[in-house]
Amino acid sequence: MASVRIREAKGGDCGDILRLIRELAEFENLSDQVKISEEALRADGFGENPFYHCLVAEILPASGKLLGQGIGSKIIKKVAEVALDKGCSQFRLAVLDWNQRAMDLYKALGAQDLTEAEGWHFFRFEGEVMRKLAGK
Amino acid sequence: MASVRIREAKGGDCGDILRLIRELAEFENLSDQVKISEEALRADGFGENPFYHCLVAEILPASGKLLGQGIGSKIIKKVAEVALDKGCSQFRLAVLDWNQRAMDLYKALGAQDLTEAEGWHFFRFEGEVMRKLAGK
Repeated sequence: MASVRIREAKGGDCGDILRLIRELAEFENLSDQVKISEEALRADGFGENPFYHCLVAEILPASGKLLGQGIGSKIIKKVAEVALDKGCSQFRLAVLDWNQRAMDLYKALGAQDLTEAEGWHFFRFEGEVMRKLAGK
Repeated sequence: MASVRIREAKGGDCGDILRLIRELAEFENLSDQVKISEEALRADGFGENPFYHCLVAEILPASGKLLGQGIGSKIIKKVAEVALDKGCSQFRLAVLDWNQRAMDLYKALGAQDLTEAEGWHFFRFEGEVMRKLAGK
């Protein structure tokens, strides 16, 4: 079994992070929605008031089959730890309704599907719509 | 028609913000999920690294019928302006699937229902589950 070390991301990870974002988007059939650059990822996450925080799983050996190694569980456990340390009372994940493997994992770890249970929907405003609303 | 002024919230608004959170939760039949105190709201939003930002709509006269005054649209337009100023490429809202009035407004303003269009679901981890995951 692979050895996994989870650590905070650094600015220098942004090239790899962008590659993984692109691979995930490809899996989700949403590649057209990835518009961010490595430079923007670095500016957004590693400036004075970061827009996001990121954990990185380093896997040794990083070859061979990675599914089923428990890496997803380890990252979610680490997120729970960081969230509690920061005083959060909950955290949320977004998942596509056909991604059964991810949904099964989240449920097995104790998450509740709020869209199913309570009817929450995501609404997104973007690009041209935002500029029109802002009068810009 | 009422006159509406939208401004950034201050720490001193937290009592009113909590009252509005409770009124919204009551409308959503989710009152049991409001566990935050005024003190926590103030600490989370008005410390050095705020967890949230908040806009307040001041309405004069603040009596009589408030629905249909366009207050929701004005706040969303202001959010779009703030988001663009901060370099955001999109923003998202969460809405319950029976809240037709809110969904109609968001769609009329140009938002896309991502849950309907792409199948995104919210998953929530909280409280005891988080502590168990973190081993605490």
